[in-house]
Amino acid sequence: MTTRPPSNTQILPTWIGSQRLVVRPGSDVASLALLGYDPYRYYTGRGALEAIGAGIELREGDVAFRCNLATVDDDFRVVDRRAGRIRKGVNKLAKAVDAIKVESVPGVKTIFKATVDHRGVLVLRGEKLSRNVSDVDPREEGLKIGIARATDGSEGGKRTAAAVNEFVKRSHEALREHPLNQERANDGEKVANIVLTRGAGTLPALPSFKSLYDLRGACVTGTALVKGLATAAGMEVMDVKGASGGLKTDYEAKAKAAIEGSKERNFILLHIKAPDIAGHDGDFKAKVRSLEEADVLVGQIIDEIDIGLNYVALTADHATPVGYATHTADPVPIVIGGPDVQASRLSKFSEANAMRGNLGRIRGVNLMPIITDMVGRSRLYGS
Amino acid sequence: MTTRPPSNTQILPTWIGSQRLVVRPGSDVASLALLGYDPYRYYTGRGALEAIGAGIELREGDVAFRCNLATVDDDFRVVDRRAGRIRKGVNKLAKAVDAIKVESVPGVKTIFKATVDHRGVLVLRGEKLSRNVSDVDPREEGLKIGIARATDGSEGGKRTAAAVNEFVKRSHEALREHPLNQERANDGEKVANIVLTRGAGTLPALPSFKSLYDLRGACVTGTALVKGLATAAGMEVMDVKGASGGLKTDYEAKAKAAIEGSKERNFILLHIKAPDIAGHDGDFKAKVRSLEEADVLVGQIIDEIDIGLNYVALTADHATPVGYATHTADPVPIVIGGPDVQASRLSKFSEANAMRGNLGRIRGVNLMPIITDMVGRSRLYGS
Repeated sequence: MTTRPPSNTQILPTWIGSQRLVVRPGSDVASLALLGYDPYRYYTGRGALEAIGAGIELREGDVAFRCNLATVDDDFRVVDRRAGRIRKGVNKLAKAVDAIKVESVPGVKTIFKATVDHRGVLVLRGEKLSRNVSDVDPREEGLKIGIARATDGSEGGKRTAAAVNEFVKRSHEALREHPLNQERANDGEKVANIVLTRGAGTLPALPSFKSLYDLRGACVTGTALVKGLATAAGMEVMDVKGASGGLKTDYEAKAKAAIEGSKERNFILLHIKAPDIAGHDGDFKAKVRSLEEADVLVGQIIDEIDIGLNYVALTADHATPVGYATHTADPVPIVIGGPDVQASRLSKFSEANAMRGNLGRIRGVNLMPIITDMVGRSRLYGS
Repeated sequence: MTTRPPSNTQILPTWIGSQRLVVRPGSDVASLALLGYDPYRYYTGRGALEAIGAGIELREGDVAFRCNLATVDDDFRVVDRRAGRIRKGVNKLAKAVDAIKVESVPGVKTIFKATVDHRGVLVLRGEKLSRNVSDVDPREEGLKIGIARATDGSEGGKRTAAAVNEFVKRSHEALREHPLNQERANDGEKVANIVLTRGAGTLPALPSFKSLYDLRGACVTGTALVKGLATAAGMEVMDVKGASGGLKTDYEAKAKAAIEGSKERNFILLHIKAPDIAGHDGDFKAKVRSLEEADVLVGQIIDEIDIGLNYVALTADHATPVGYATHTADPVPIVIGGPDVQASRLSKFSEANAMRGNLGRIRGVNLMPIITDMVGRSRLYGS
């Protein structure tokens, strides 16, 4: 098996081999790894996973972007990356944006869809497009918006960049005079007068979760990213009312869905986003609260699932320490409970204890093989 | 990024991927790994690093060798690999050797430079040379000198081997009648009557340390190898008087240089060679002494550097147990001190304790990503 990434992958200068133990990962890359997909082989950009998670049927050749509805001034300087965290009327704005036709690049169609609050996804559909284009979103307020460029100098990258730049310009034209924004302006609210793109991605070629692990899986999550990842892996995405992907989410509904779902399937991925959000916000109290709420959820599951017959694994895709307010490369703790698990003599689930636990220091991609083996579905290598 | 070794690399049948945890490494390979350069990708032979460390501006296409001034009898049997550890007059002998012209291989120029004591480096410069040539140094006394051969049967290997063999023969002609050797013979000392080559290497293509880690680095060392490695990585090599690279070295001067250097740079590599030498000599007392002296140096640094703001990592490139008098593949302990480090509850720095520490068992190439992440300079993979 080659470990080389596909040729259209953007190579980061920090890559040394494809087997790194210490990586500061994005949620996309980290979640891919936890499901057993080596990101160095399978990662094709976040936008694709977000678009799939938003319910768009992404096709081979499409290039998808994460988007924000944002506020810019007349100089295209970003005043608010989230347009005052706009919620109301977003679908109307999205409709106006979805109607945009890009003319400078022949044969390219655009699809825009709002997801949660100020967030959305853009899909470019057409021939000879590439995900090797830079972000328009400068990711910092006070800066001018970026101009999309081909990061690899390729023809496809240039075509895509031109389409993105025209789309962004047209989104400003379509939104700035929109009645809803005039209302917002009158009410003293920030206007959502542009779409900013980032995280270009293409359809990842994931072998199905079922084919890899012989497990029928389903997923409980509120985020488009994890929904998209599960869908791309051929897992079912359960529709859970109240699973918001935000700080306030219905933990009980998620626990119930997972318990219920486990009766007809043999793998449930239950994802909680809140602790990561609290970490990014640098909000210690919110982080503690989110972990306490998650703790109750775990308790509910363990009470309902027979651990004498089933396995429960609890871990994180990455650390987001409050003191740093961003992802770090720190190892994260993991605990697995179930029949015949070699138990450690540790009573507390903590980073320090995890280092003394029976699993040692493993990589994210090692988790699924461990689980698959515990449940008796691993394949023999050799004979 | 491909993890395949360059095509001129000799492939060992035991290789399984490029990510082995257990390796008995040379100092060159181990030090490359600790600086974050995967040796399976970047190692191109020790001779090159030694030549660069000796101050030779190695060019693409050059092939460099580690050399010893040695004593052979009339049958080219090695009497003393180090010519009685000759020190005096070495530069005069080196001058005679440097003047050698190789005639059998057109267009090949030779450069010879003495380094420390009986040691030196040879560089072959010319077209179509290869580092795939075997050693002339038999590495054991009492044996005949080797004949350099192309280890891969290539044309370049054959050209290089022919040049090396002629050079060695001519070194014997140039040295055996040298007045300095006649003096040595009269004084009953072993004559330095030949140059023995080993460790062919070519310029390694290392991405700069700065580009990889966004750290401005400098190096304190007495050895040509580590000087060469640091230089090849684009790090500054600090000139420290008394840093000998030997058993007796000026620890205090090295500590001072590191402390001083850290004020204007954000990474200092401080290398101590003595414990390895004592290990190779099988000299238990010298090993203990060298570790005690290194301990004082570490104390000086920790006293002067504010560990509340800076990080200090202490480790070894490999084990050289006195009982084996050579490198082994044993894991080596590591300790890192600094802000927000998740401290282990262990008070002693030892191999046994390291096995119970919070870092788990990591590979050499994992160290720089850990350090880079701790100091907040790691790049996000994914988004």
